[in-house]
Amino acid sequence: MKIAIYPGSFDPITYGHLDIIERSARFFDNLIVAVLSNPQKQPLFTAEERMIMIKESVKHISNVEVESFQGLLVDFARIKKARIIIKGLRAVSDFEYEFQMALMNKKLDDCVETFFMMTSAKYSYLSSSVVKEVARFGGCIRDLVPTVVETQLKKKFFSK
Amino acid sequence: MKIAIYPGSFDPITYGHLDIIERSARFFDNLIVAVLSNPQKQPLFTAEERMIMIKESVKHISNVEVESFQGLLVDFARIKKARIIIKGLRAVSDFEYEFQMALMNKKLDDCVETFFMMTSAKYSYLSSSVVKEVARFGGCIRDLVPTVVETQLKKKFFSK
Amino acid sequence: MKIAIYPGSFDPITYGHLDIIERSARFFDNLIVAVLSNPQKQPLFTAEERMIMIKESVKHISNVEVESFQGLLVDFARIKKARIIIKGLRAVSDFEYEFQMALMNKKLDDCVETFFMMTSAKYSYLSSSVVKEVARFGGCIRDLVPTVVETQLKKKFFSK
Amino acid sequence: MKIAIYPGSFDPITYGHLDIIERSARFFDNLIVAVLSNPQKQPLFTAEERMIMIKESVKHISNVEVESFQGLLVDFARIKKARIIIKGLRAVSDFEYEFQMALMNKKLDDCVETFFMMTSAKYSYLSSSVVKEVARFGGCIRDLVPTVVETQLKKKFFSK
Amino acid sequence: MKIAIYPGSFDPITYGHLDIIERSARFFDNLIVAVLSNPQKQPLFTAEERMIMIKESVKHISNVEVESFQGLLVDFARIKKARIIIKGLRAVSDFEYEFQMALMNKKLDDCVETFFMMTSAKYSYLSSSVVKEVARFGGCIRDLVPTVVETQLKKKFFSK
Amino acid sequence: MKIAIYPGSFDPITYGHLDIIERSARFFDNLIVAVLSNPQKQPLFTAEERMIMIKESVKHISNVEVESFQGLLVDFARIKKARIIIKGLRAVSDFEYEFQMALMNKKLDDCVETFFMMTSAKYSYLSSSVVKEVARFGGCIRDLVPTVVETQLKKKFFSK
Repeated sequence: MKIAIYPGSFDPITYGHLDIIERSARFFDNLIVAVLSNPQKQPLFTAEERMIMIKESVKHISNVEVESFQGLLVDFARIKKARIIIKGLRAVSDFEYEFQMALMNKKLDDCVETFFMMTSAKYSYLSSSVVKEVARFGGCIRDLVPTVVETQLKKKFFSK
Repeated sequence: MKIAIYPGSFDPITYGHLDIIERSARFFDNLIVAVLSNPQKQPLFTAEERMIMIKESVKHISNVEVESFQGLLVDFARIKKARIIIKGLRAVSDFEYEFQMALMNKKLDDCVETFFMMTSAKYSYLSSSVVKEVARFGGCIRDLVPTVVETQLKKKFFSK
Repeated sequence: MKIAIYPGSFDPITYGHLDIIERSARFFDNLIVAVLSNPQKQPLFTAEERMIMIKESVKHISNVEVESFQGLLVDFARIKKARIIIKGLRAVSDFEYEFQMALMNKKLDDCVETFFMMTSAKYSYLSSSVVKEVARFGGCIRDLVPTVVETQLKKKFFSK
Repeated sequence: MKIAIYPGSFDPITYGHLDIIERSARFFDNLIVAVLSNPQKQPLFTAEERMIMIKESVKHISNVEVESFQGLLVDFARIKKARIIIKGLRAVSDFEYEFQMALMNKKLDDCVETFFMMTSAKYSYLSSSVVKEVARFGGCIRDLVPTVVETQLKKKFFSK
Repeated sequence: MKIAIYPGSFDPITYGHLDIIERSARFFDNLIVAVLSNPQKQPLFTAEERMIMIKESVKHISNVEVESFQGLLVDFARIKKARIIIKGLRAVSDFEYEFQMALMNKKLDDCVETFFMMTSAKYSYLSSSVVKEVARFGGCIRDLVPTVVETQLKKKFFSK
Repeated sequence: MKIAIYPGSFDPITYGHLDIIERSARFFDNLIVAVLSNPQKQPLFTAEERMIMIKESVKHISNVEVESFQGLLVDFARIKKARIIIKGLRAVSDFEYEFQMALMNKKLDDCVETFFMMTSAKYSYLSSSVVKEVARFGGCIRDLVPTVVETQLKKKFFSK
């Protein structure tokens, strides 16, 4: 039984993330989308809110679970008996940071491997922070995020 | 009538920015230097102060206007009937972020195109943040920024 | 009257090139697609063949001309009274080489400016050499190049 | 039954390649090391010689096969019923080329996914061409390639 | 008498830094490890604490001194009669920032040269911030930092 | 006595190379400019011609010698009792290749260190191959190379 983890902040999930989830889930028995709950960062959405949006967005894929974690990713992987980490790459700057993290994770736990997938070309410009920036000023984000996220972003920025 | 926008924080304007303004203004009927007034960032100079310094620096170029804007750049471009965005590139890290923004802006408004120009070699090491860092500690910035900016930086850091 | 030059090898033209041509031609009175005829390279198609394929591909755009040139791009630009060079950028490796060439061209003729445009995300993986590689082994290139190029590539590789 | 393909020139195989093979083979039922036999390149070793060296180097891993292929990788993958391509990444320049190839392969066959792994830090400076360069001038390559490769390189360069 | 400066935040010193110190100290009469005391940043350790950890880590190298500085690096270099700055490079993102700083420092003081050294491959994934991240969550950092740093990190994060 | 080596193809030497030579020679007792004589490459100038042009260009610097070498750089360094290699960096693509070579050289001989210097901003667009390209088509190269090189390039391209 092969278990893989797809970790991230997902603040919020975009179609770029969903693309990686859909493409990678086919290759594993179980894919755990792992929401990083970092007490030192100040996300727009709470870990709980982020998990709800992801669950809604992946409900059509039977072998995907959504969880949150704190601390080291390799510790979370060990608890989940997962030996594969999935990461999406868009650009060179992603690449260098992820390279560093993959080597450090391998150093911390030699049994865990990171597999990188290229984000589809049509989502190469997409990031959670750009989506938030556009949504904050009322730009159209329909093609960028699942409907549930679009609704929640509007609520965050305009319902007060 | 071709109108182009050169957007940025300009906190403060440097000779690198001025180089892009002078070289690009020749090709358009009107070039609007658009100062981003982002309420979430904490600039050294207010949008008002930044506009004054730019106006002083570009007064020798007849077809350049200086304005400030909030919100999405494509919305500002639409209001100004500008279909061209000018950006300067210095390095790879610039490149990736600007790539992402250009593609996102094109997604938000297909009529707007971003044209990139290479910063002149002699200004390739220059950025507003490096200038502020040098000025803060009394380093010589005469060759880096217009005189009005040099004066204002000294006032900010040393006149209290 | 604003004249711009879009130089390249175009061996052969792809939809990535055509995308840059269509997007940039709107902003100039005349856009000259300039086919580099380099006697030291061994292209798959002759300069003549490449020009024919480009002409067929751009015939729906009234202000685009196709020419070939040898020697320095700045010399060709001077003859054509063009002061703008258009280049498409896909990736970091493009960026560095093009950066070097733009600075050198500026050094050789200070009146000529290079404007860079980002290749549309959906063509970011596309290059003439990859197209030739795929065509050589019978892969489907329908979405990658104009029909005239598809026909000519098949002729080159399979009609003997 | 999950089958993965690890394609490359392997001219010759290095400890960097072997590291990727050993780390990835654990996750698949079958890993096919696919030696690209490109009639347009002039390798140091024939496809046959390269396969023999790889076979000798991977004989301790039961689920690894070695084959050669010509033409498009996606066609070879289809014949082998493999839906996963494994690639090792060392550096940014690798990254950009591989990015382009992965997107093109996905375009040619949407069922095939490329998974990238980071080369271990200690092999980040290693490439077949650097190994050949060092061996050609009698430098020590003991820690860089399997013994069988060391022997064959010496034979190539010094036994005439 | 050749004096070199190795500047940085060292918050805290890692084996990556120590590797650069050991390899560069051999080439100069005196190597000054210069701890940047930036009142605008909020380091984990005070400049004083960082200096103590460095002194403990380099006590086996006779020609290394440890000092702290504020302000411009070129001013500190002038006071110390040092004309060489040593910097370690790990990756492309390092490279661009350091490139900018080296050119700016040369602009500020033409007598000062920056020499860059490549961080050893085995430490290419190592940074002070990654070490702090790992230590914060109880991960093993034995191979990453000197013993004195390991002890101090544990004290910082777990002794309350 | 500190001896450093500045290796390269120098086909031909440019003001970019000369800038590195002048800036680095101040820090060593002896700087050996080492011309790589690679029988597998086809340079424009013979190793002999390249050495003559370099000697002419550096005759105002007393502690610079010019030699040619074949084979591994670390072997040449050992013969010359040099433990320092100097390399100039212009851009990211330089960086990655040079990174790989520096790590490999360190692997081959742990006593040899590579120090990198940033090419001055004004020469960041300059390379031997771009100079040859410009000279071949009669472009002005006066500010790019020493007079002796300008003369020789004209002779090569136009005196037949």
